[in-house]
Amino acid sequence: MSKNHRAIGIDIGGTKTAVGAVNGTGVLAARTTFATEAARGFPSFVERTVAAINQVLAEAGWSRADLCGIGIGCPGPVDPKRGLINNPYTLEGWDRCDIVTPLRETFSVPVRLENDADSAVTGEAFVGAARGCDRVVLLTLGTGIGSGVLVDGHIYRGANDEHPELGHLPVLSDGPACYCGQKGCFEALASGTAIGTAGKAAGLGDCPQVFAAAAQGNPAAQQIIQRATSAASAAAWGILCTFLPQRIILGGGIIDEHFELFAAPFRAAIAAASMVSRESIQVVHAQLGNDAGMVGAACLALSR
Amino acid sequence: MSKNHRAIGIDIGGTKTAVGAVNGTGVLAARTTFATEAARGFPSFVERTVAAINQVLAEAGWSRADLCGIGIGCPGPVDPKRGLINNPYTLEGWDRCDIVTPLRETFSVPVRLENDADSAVTGEAFVGAARGCDRVVLLTLGTGIGSGVLVDGHIYRGANDEHPELGHLPVLSDGPACYCGQKGCFEALASGTAIGTAGKAAGLGDCPQVFAAAAQGNPAAQQIIQRATSAASAAAWGILCTFLPQRIILGGGIIDEHFELFAAPFRAAIAAASMVSRESIQVVHAQLGNDAGMVGAACLALSR
Repeated sequence: MSKNHRAIGIDIGGTKTAVGAVNGTGVLAARTTFATEAARGFPSFVERTVAAINQVLAEAGWSRADLCGIGIGCPGPVDPKRGLINNPYTLEGWDRCDIVTPLRETFSVPVRLENDADSAVTGEAFVGAARGCDRVVLLTLGTGIGSGVLVDGHIYRGANDEHPELGHLPVLSDGPACYCGQKGCFEALASGTAIGTAGKAAGLGDCPQVFAAAAQGNPAAQQIIQRATSAASAAAWGILCTFLPQRIILGGGIIDEHFELFAAPFRAAIAAASMVSRESIQVVHAQLGNDAGMVGAACLALSR
Repeated sequence: MSKNHRAIGIDIGGTKTAVGAVNGTGVLAARTTFATEAARGFPSFVERTVAAINQVLAEAGWSRADLCGIGIGCPGPVDPKRGLINNPYTLEGWDRCDIVTPLRETFSVPVRLENDADSAVTGEAFVGAARGCDRVVLLTLGTGIGSGVLVDGHIYRGANDEHPELGHLPVLSDGPACYCGQKGCFEALASGTAIGTAGKAAGLGDCPQVFAAAAQGNPAAQQIIQRATSAASAAAWGILCTFLPQRIILGGGIIDEHFELFAAPFRAAIAAASMVSRESIQVVHAQLGNDAGMVGAACLALSR
């Protein structure tokens, strides 16, 4: 296999960071994880990342010269043009931290940084659920709601390189307040945090407990879940009349457990959409699963 | 001036069609209009269009050889790739009507057909309110609500060449029914038709009468207008978290009379947006005014 089909994918998370040696078909040749421990400082993180890359290269039997590049997916605000992580919110103290330059200088390959939803949708397009699609919207429903949009194979960015924040589509007039400053955002109704908050207020417990109680017929729990799926329906409509994708990919922890529950309102919205080519729009489960972060990040390099 | 800077712009409307000879700075060298009279049949329309083009060429003192192309803006569904008008809704009997081939064969120049909002946003980008902008959203508030989105100078299209229908962004949960099949669409609350419908139900009269009554302090009229501006606020939020434009252009009959009234909720939404580069987003009035249709259509050819 040519060197153009081997890359390192790095999935930075608030708790742990995963590093994988990924080949051109999206298969992991080797992988490792380490505790992110953002508070130890960014230089320490860079050192530990370099060590992890060397470790997976050794395990895969690859040399630095085999690599076509390194891709990095990171939660929260990133500056992909400058290679900066700007996420002091969930990565303590990491504001304007350049991850790209030290890795590029150490390994002498192109290095690309993206938001983790953008790297995930890149992976799905390259080796997953969105192969061959021109217009793709990926939504991850987990603790929060992340989104990545692909247009003609490129990550959609705003005028200042921001990426679409579909978790903040307004879906319920006068709905609950969202940390973004608005009310009734998709994320404020259908994220794990939102479901858990409503569940605790109703004495039902956290998000998994709300789903469990709803499955057992608890009306208060069913109402919370109904509110989340109604939010998904409105969000679907907002996505259909803006990006007009041919494929909507749902992923994340909540979807992995309840894909059909959330696919249904998306499919119903599409069936009711008179102004788009509804028969050509598919709602699918993310395919890359637990390795999506690493594989998607590697695909940032593989797909250059 | 080289032939690359002269084009014909055709603005097809339900009532009248305007044809202009437009130079590279967006200035009309000659213009004419004729009654569309769609029901006379499409072949008759093509004949009358050819005659109108010849008339404006003669008035401008241009020959066919001077033209870089012909651009056409048309309301409702069009198929820009195949050059077809598919709008039997407001252009009686015009379903899959090929306007491009006969004009191309007659004048031996490239001919381009687009939805009228898409041609308007192209004109604003080329010679109007969006010059130099990478990400532009244009909304026209008139009888209905039209939209055109430019990304890197190209009209944004969905997977099947549809264009974004921002008039159908969901903005009010359980709002009034929309002809598109959904409830609470932006268009169902803030279009001239929606305001007029609400006005008649309240005994106030049509859309201009509602605005006049609101200006005179009529509470029922003020409530209808308030509902429309609240809809604009939610639509603004939906646009900000999807397309992330650097410029939002408002145009159309309602905006020409009440720009500041509708710009205010857009600006308030931007000021509250924590996740975008809010200081770089501007809300502006369309600049091309009454000639927007012709000039925008000509710019489809000029900007190729």
